Amino acid sequence: MPELTPEEREVRREAVGELGAALRELVDAAVRTEVPLDRLAGAASAARELTALLSADLREVHEIASVDDPDSGQRWYSPVYGPGSPVAPPMVVDDFPDEGRCVGHVTVAKSLEGPPGLVHGGVVATLLDHVLARSARGAGHGGLTATLTVTYRRPVHLGIPLVVTGRLVSAEGRRATATARLVAADDPGTTLAEGEALLVALRAERASEVFARTGRNVGAWTSRS
Amino acid sequence: MPELTPEEREVRREAVGELGAALRELVDAAVRTEVPLDRLAGAASAARELTALLSADLREVHEIASVDDPDSGQRWYSPVYGPGSPVAPPMVVDDFPDEGRCVGHVTVAKSLEGPPGLVHGGVVATLLDHVLARSARGAGHGGLTATLTVTYRRPVHLGIPLVVTGRLVSAEGRRATATARLVAADDPGTTLAEGEALLVALRAERASEVFARTGRNVGAWTSRS
Repeated sequence: MPELTPEEREVRREAVGELGAALRELVDAAVRTEVPLDRLAGAASAARELTALLSADLREVHEIASVDDPDSGQRWYSPVYGPGSPVAPPMVVDDFPDEGRCVGHVTVAKSLEGPPGLVHGGVVATLLDHVLARSARGAGHGGLTATLTVTYRRPVHLGIPLVVTGRLVSAEGRRATATARLVAADDPGTTLAEGEALLVALRAERASEVFARTGRNVGAWTSRS
Repeated sequence: MPELTPEEREVRREAVGELGAALRELVDAAVRTEVPLDRLAGAASAARELTALLSADLREVHEIASVDDPDSGQRWYSPVYGPGSPVAPPMVVDDFPDEGRCVGHVTVAKSLEGPPGLVHGGVVATLLDHVLARSARGAGHGGLTATLTVTYRRPVHLGIPLVVTGRLVSAEGRRATATARLVAADDPGTTLAEGEALLVALRAERASEVFARTGRNVGAWTSRS
């Protein structure tokens, strides 16, 4: 796969984001539709045609997308924040690296439902995991999650604006600790869920092994020293 | 929305599963495609047409699907195991309720990637969360997750068959504790990730509040006594 120039990458990111947005609407309609059976069958057949159109040139499962930057960790198809991801909510995250902090804004749709009307507990964990790792990475302590603890205090409803904040608490060598909190945007004083994580950066040799199949240099999860 | 007869529900579940499978292939192609820009734009426009087709009859975000059974907790669009979900891997789970145990089989695709080539940490948490809650629910201790702890022991790669086992450890009143373990199918002796959860069943009054907007009786997460 040829690498893109910065300009080409920007243009492609736009197009990837547009397709991502269209597919997120399709996913939402698919999990909420009660149209008759023949329409469901027609939609399945149209979806297969669309798949064929996109399958003319596919990356292998370990290859990194041309729109991505594996050194900064910017992932255009991230299942959490990726503009090109059909499965992401997607969360929009503001970074405050000098404060070791980041703040995500997200409204979770029907496709990520757990108990009726509520956000799936695993999705709550995923949102927290992202801001936990990101607050540390932003402050120069990129790493993989080693342990994650989530405390669910109240049910989190679908379809309402949520705010998810991550904060780097401490860092020493390859290890960092972060905490996170999820609230409803219209009731920021009430914690709905909390998370805590220990993040550990990979040693360079270990990173070479783990990411060998990507065939690329992957900096964002690797110890700098 | 009219309730379906058991026969109608079976027929609709088939059609919903077929559309789900087609959309999962579309999602996979969308996050792996490197086709030219004009094809991306064409795909976005085709996806929007498909959305319009399915949007002729949509449930509200809190409404329960006609194919679902909210009393047993069977959810056809579950983001973890739902045959109709475009975002689920989907995991296939065998239940052993007499042993308080369930075993999930799943291969995670590119759309749920975290670090390059690896399953997103939040997705690992989601798979564990599901078997944790399900092992308890199968044994009659349905509840919402109150705390979830995940220990990530080794990177979990995309595209390989995984086995995720949940086990009810203890239960008293409305509270249950469960543990879970995730391994590669071809190396079952090596733990890749572990989970532990405290699950708490809602009191009937509280369940009425939490699920009020569904307009249905929701038994699967509610205390029976």
